[in-house]
Amino acid sequence: MIATPVALTRYHEAVQTEMRAAFPDVDLPIYDMARYALGWLDEQGNPANASGKGARAALTMLGAEAITDDPDALKRASAGAAAVEIVHNFSLVHDDVQDGDVERRGRPTVWKIWGVAQAINTGDLMRELADAALRRPLLHGASPESVIEAVRRLNRATMLMIEGQYLDLTFEQRTDVAVDEYLAMVERKTGAMMGVSLSIGATLAGASSEQADALDRAGKRLGRCFQMRDDWLGIWADPDALGKPTDADIRRRKKSYPILYTLGNAPAEARRELMEIYRSELGGGDDLPEEQVDWVHNLLDEIGADQVTDQAARVEYEAFRVEMESAKPRAEAVADLEALALFTLERDR
Amino acid sequence: MIATPVALTRYHEAVQTEMRAAFPDVDLPIYDMARYALGWLDEQGNPANASGKGARAALTMLGAEAITDDPDALKRASAGAAAVEIVHNFSLVHDDVQDGDVERRGRPTVWKIWGVAQAINTGDLMRELADAALRRPLLHGASPESVIEAVRRLNRATMLMIEGQYLDLTFEQRTDVAVDEYLAMVERKTGAMMGVSLSIGATLAGASSEQADALDRAGKRLGRCFQMRDDWLGIWADPDALGKPTDADIRRRKKSYPILYTLGNAPAEARRELMEIYRSELGGGDDLPEEQVDWVHNLLDEIGADQVTDQAARVEYEAFRVEMESAKPRAEAVADLEALALFTLERDR
Repeated sequence: MIATPVALTRYHEAVQTEMRAAFPDVDLPIYDMARYALGWLDEQGNPANASGKGARAALTMLGAEAITDDPDALKRASAGAAAVEIVHNFSLVHDDVQDGDVERRGRPTVWKIWGVAQAINTGDLMRELADAALRRPLLHGASPESVIEAVRRLNRATMLMIEGQYLDLTFEQRTDVAVDEYLAMVERKTGAMMGVSLSIGATLAGASSEQADALDRAGKRLGRCFQMRDDWLGIWADPDALGKPTDADIRRRKKSYPILYTLGNAPAEARRELMEIYRSELGGGDDLPEEQVDWVHNLLDEIGADQVTDQAARVEYEAFRVEMESAKPRAEAVADLEALALFTLERDR
Repeated sequence: MIATPVALTRYHEAVQTEMRAAFPDVDLPIYDMARYALGWLDEQGNPANASGKGARAALTMLGAEAITDDPDALKRASAGAAAVEIVHNFSLVHDDVQDGDVERRGRPTVWKIWGVAQAINTGDLMRELADAALRRPLLHGASPESVIEAVRRLNRATMLMIEGQYLDLTFEQRTDVAVDEYLAMVERKTGAMMGVSLSIGATLAGASSEQADALDRAGKRLGRCFQMRDDWLGIWADPDALGKPTDADIRRRKKSYPILYTLGNAPAEARRELMEIYRSELGGGDDLPEEQVDWVHNLLDEIGADQVTDQAARVEYEAFRVEMESAKPRAEAVADLEALALFTLERDR
């Protein structure tokens, strides 16, 4: 098992403090629904410890470290990290409604507990809380100009993320999605938020806009790498490490990268059969029978979708490194950035 | 029929221009869904003319006129007006999903056409477009500080609006909502956005924070007045003017102000019967039978809910005037502000 990069834990407390500070002093249950979504409370309102990995917060802090080691600048960046984490979690709350998913991080989803209407509300509220967090760098000495630039970047990235979610939903209705289309969707849905994590941290730490733009491009590549690895794990993961059975994505008919590759490259007859299985009329319903799961898995292996998906992730990892270096990061920050990217590429869960 | 105040039309084109400019140059159907929600396109993507009255845009511009008649300042305010209108329409898109409403302004709602998942996306996207609009005053010479202050005000008001929507949804499950609770909900759900309309316009036109705060309080009162009148029209309107039949709110069992007043003040037996009708198990389903509609209407008339609701609206109108005057608006702007408030109080649709 690959070790968790230190960057994921180093600023955890500082970022959590900024996230909590974004909440207004208002005593309404909808704020506790947001705290539940962030993993701080359980369903009954008791303290919980169910937050995500905090990858985006770590990227934000590394984006800042790429520019400076000034503690005040890093403090400003931690507020940016809080904003990005809250936006990411807002998107998960709405995604779970849109996909009808009943579980997230081993717990019932917000809509499953409080209903669709309040889950929409909770996500909407979290988007506002993120904006509140993103003004807090002003309290830590940030210039109004840099805060506006950070707000602009988060705003633009969130739009891209929503465009990606729009595309992802339309792809569910299609069986002719090309892998390039899929990657362009992933760059928006997952990459934009990783890109803005790096660039917003850098911006709040005093980066030039050229540096921030280069880090933004690097983060988008890392987002694509992240999803390629996710798609690989969804089929070929060691179930003990992942905590889910192998072939999970085949069973739920998810049109992930290896499936799209195979749909585009399998021999005509196998392709027709695969398309039949993934046709939208069938998807979204029951799990695929185990016999068909095995058939799909074997087809993927025959056509080499395992290696192709892994290779696609490696291409993105290399592109990340090139873009990251072009931002001219401080030498001291490069090792941590590379460690986080390598973890993204090689993680087993 | 009471005449439409000139403030509703004077800046219509300027604000629409700012709204359109907030859209990025991206060719994806989800942007057309947002244009549909704003009334610019029909379902097929052809030009339409189905926007709302633009009350919040008018308030924003009057908030600016309360401070100055400088054309540059008014240009800056028009971008703020665009942001407020887009946020208002974002909230309607999500509200329609939450309430299951199939029609808005005589057209199918976004979720009815494109489904719940894409309607959530469309609303989310519009919230981002509003933020994009709110940075445009920078192009018209606004200081970064004033833009951050405008962003802060819109952020805070949107949170209040979401709190109000949270409360409104919980009230649907209750029959013991006191009229004061209802008014506190209305102040958030409707008042906050009217308050920030006035105060954001003033802020972008150079108001002191005391002036902006006073206008914010005035707008909240106007929002309460607006809703009281809405509730009155939902039962006692002239159907020819309103375009909907009298008693519409009784028929759909809406727990509006006159109903809540009657639930709190009717004699014990009538109250029990009314509560039975409005109990959550019954609500949300079919329309109330006409016989019961008549019974409720008569009970409301007997107990004087007509006059009480009208009086509640007048109280808010007077409170609006007091708060508005305390902002020390330019004398030239007062007449238009009062005309818009009087229209809010006395409109017949």
